Amino acid sequence: MNVLITGAGGYIGAHLAKALLARGELGGHPLRAVMLADRSLAPHRDPRVRTLEADLLDPATLAAIAEFAPQCTFHLAAIPGGASEADYVAGRRINLQGTLALFETLADLPREAGAPAPVVVYSSTIAVYGTTLPPLVRPDMPLHPPVTYGAHKLACEILLADFSRRGRLDGRAVRLPGIVARPRSGPGLASGFMSDIIRALAAGQPYTCPVRPQATAWWMSATRCAENLLHAATMDLAGADAARAWPLPVLRLSVAEVVQAAAELYGADRAALVQYAPDPAIEAVYGSYPVLDDAPSRSLGLRDDGDAQAMLGRALDEA
Amino acid sequence: MNVLITGAGGYIGAHLAKALLARGELGGHPLRAVMLADRSLAPHRDPRVRTLEADLLDPATLAAIAEFAPQCTFHLAAIPGGASEADYVAGRRINLQGTLALFETLADLPREAGAPAPVVVYSSTIAVYGTTLPPLVRPDMPLHPPVTYGAHKLACEILLADFSRRGRLDGRAVRLPGIVARPRSGPGLASGFMSDIIRALAAGQPYTCPVRPQATAWWMSATRCAENLLHAATMDLAGADAARAWPLPVLRLSVAEVVQAAAELYGADRAALVQYAPDPAIEAVYGSYPVLDDAPSRSLGLRDDGDAQAMLGRALDEA
Repeated sequence: MNVLITGAGGYIGAHLAKALLARGELGGHPLRAVMLADRSLAPHRDPRVRTLEADLLDPATLAAIAEFAPQCTFHLAAIPGGASEADYVAGRRINLQGTLALFETLADLPREAGAPAPVVVYSSTIAVYGTTLPPLVRPDMPLHPPVTYGAHKLACEILLADFSRRGRLDGRAVRLPGIVARPRSGPGLASGFMSDIIRALAAGQPYTCPVRPQATAWWMSATRCAENLLHAATMDLAGADAARAWPLPVLRLSVAEVVQAAAELYGADRAALVQYAPDPAIEAVYGSYPVLDDAPSRSLGLRDDGDAQAMLGRALDEA
Repeated sequence: MNVLITGAGGYIGAHLAKALLARGELGGHPLRAVMLADRSLAPHRDPRVRTLEADLLDPATLAAIAEFAPQCTFHLAAIPGGASEADYVAGRRINLQGTLALFETLADLPREAGAPAPVVVYSSTIAVYGTTLPPLVRPDMPLHPPVTYGAHKLACEILLADFSRRGRLDGRAVRLPGIVARPRSGPGLASGFMSDIIRALAAGQPYTCPVRPQATAWWMSATRCAENLLHAATMDLAGADAARAWPLPVLRLSVAEVVQAAAELYGADRAALVQYAPDPAIEAVYGSYPVLDDAPSRSLGLRDDGDAQAMLGRALDEA
């Protein structure tokens, strides 16, 4: 089986590539080759790996993907929410046009009669839901993306579901929550504080948190995220919703609960390292994530990290 | 005020252009010029009218629109559902890419400080809802477009709402039901039977109907549709939903009710002209439209035709 990962040089992509290569198979099919695609990539020693310097709007990139003919693609390449909000054209090019160009390239791959449609696991986002959320986020709630990033991701969910309905792709969109613990975040990723506080707590460094201790968010380690993405590629969709988009199950934790779990893991003195200086703009988005009804996702076998300590432990796994 | 109508050569576009020019103003602002855009257009004698042979993916078309700088745009240009289903690339080019190119061109128009964002009335479709509908279609129900046409329209609703959120456009998407009575339909418009039966009944010609007499659909005359589009451009959105998309209020009528109304209008003998030969593919889509909860649309001042006879009377108004 040939597997393509776009955005493979990113934080989640690197975890996914590592987990896939360690597993050596997908859905019972041995891996033949893995194409890692990104704007730039470090060399890779695994003989199963090919790297592709990719721009999804460049015909040469699309031709290389078509020649590779992946049976399964994990599409993670994107520019994040803050950057997309600041630079509309860059967001539209990469998150909307690039995604559509990839979908069309995969949908057009020659197939033998009876062969299944190419699988596409699409990394969508909880930013499709909106900011003013009800106390319980239900699977059928109307979606009002509060940022262009979320609007483009939602549009691509719809396009992917349509390719699936047409039998041209086998799409599976999963909406990712805040994935931790990313390397020290630069600008452009509004959820960066979730990773920063974990790295500071683990390293025993002081940290000024931009949301109140009561602020709740949806948390997942990159390791568990990678496991979920691999599961999404092969989970049985018989009877599943035609929209083919599911939130990943999440741990809903307050910052105080994360700090408490870190204190239990690393020592009681760690809690005193955190100061709070709430930023209204960050509080508005990340201040009070409600309860997520993720029962349909769990019934498909997608999973959260279990508890805060397990999440913290996995959050610092390196790819 | 400068007003642009795309798809102005089409059935609804022609009715809209006629109604707008007759009114001579929009929201209290006198019309200065109306640009009618389509792939081809008949010459127009009204001195306020400019015609534009348009391809929304052609930079020359977009430059002409930017130079015209409309304060209000009615975007009707599209290829219909059946044609989009048969030719994916044509549908994607016109219904998705062309629409996005138009939105971006309008969003980028230079504006003086404090000037309102350009208004865009976008012609969306009830095809966003899906085919397996509950008995009551509620405003917050999840959308599962059953055809690529509906998927592209829904994606563009989301993009338009995002431009509105950014303050770059003032978008108003209205979801059109079956608009009657179009000229004898060719292939590519699955709802064509709704127009064909009205024209046959009015002309006293025999007609073989591809759905059962009990089949219910959502009906609206082109004249009432044009009035609704004009209203949508100026209706007050204070407190309205951030999705900025509403179904037009509809008359839900069975074919038998339409035939009965025609018999009352044109003579009792007309009912005998209709034979029924249900086509399963058309029945599946147009066989049983449920009740539409269009209260939010009505509260904004959008309207249906009143009753079946009024709808039939207006349906044969020529543009």
